[in-house]
Amino acid sequence: MIRHVVLFTWSPEATEEQKAAVAAELRELPGQIPEIRSYLLGSDAGINPGNHDFAVVADFDSEDDYRAYRDHPRHQAVIAEHIKPILATRAAVQFGC
Amino acid sequence: MIRHVVLFTWSPEATEEQKAAVAAELRELPGQIPEIRSYLLGSDAGINPGNHDFAVVADFDSEDDYRAYRDHPRHQAVIAEHIKPILATRAAVQFGC
Repeated sequence: MIRHVVLFTWSPEATEEQKAAVAAELRELPGQIPEIRSYLLGSDAGINPGNHDFAVVADFDSEDDYRAYRDHPRHQAVIAEHIKPILATRAAVQFGC
Repeated sequence: MIRHVVLFTWSPEATEEQKAAVAAELRELPGQIPEIRSYLLGSDAGINPGNHDFAVVADFDSEDDYRAYRDHPRHQAVIAEHIKPILATRAAVQFGC
């Protein structure tokens, strides 16, 4: 299995509607990209200071399946239309497990 | 469920032995901290440029169980003895799912 993890911080100007749209649009992807095996996402719970704002953890059977997700037009559309307009910083890892 | 995600980058001076020790020491924690429900970790697979170096994804039944892990002496010892000496940057999120 390959696990993809990505953490975002949002720009100070990002509205609650924009942040909610990112989550709503991403939640549609498992129904549109069959390579996704597991897909969990959410906003930071506020337990610790200094955290990033939002996380996505996605599991795939193979690196090729991850690449199919990464490059899928629906995924790329969510990135371009909803994530990039409010993105401040991004941190990611893909690891085998 | 609360999912804890943390990504690290290592300092340029970090040795392969030091990086391997972080993974080996962390892998002992599920046997020592009963609140951990799931614990997956690994080094970045090298698929994408600009990624962080290492990821840990840990699941807990509750925020209190996550805090028990966060503050557990064995976990804190791994952080102090193995992670902090080679740490460059850290990004984390805890989210309910």
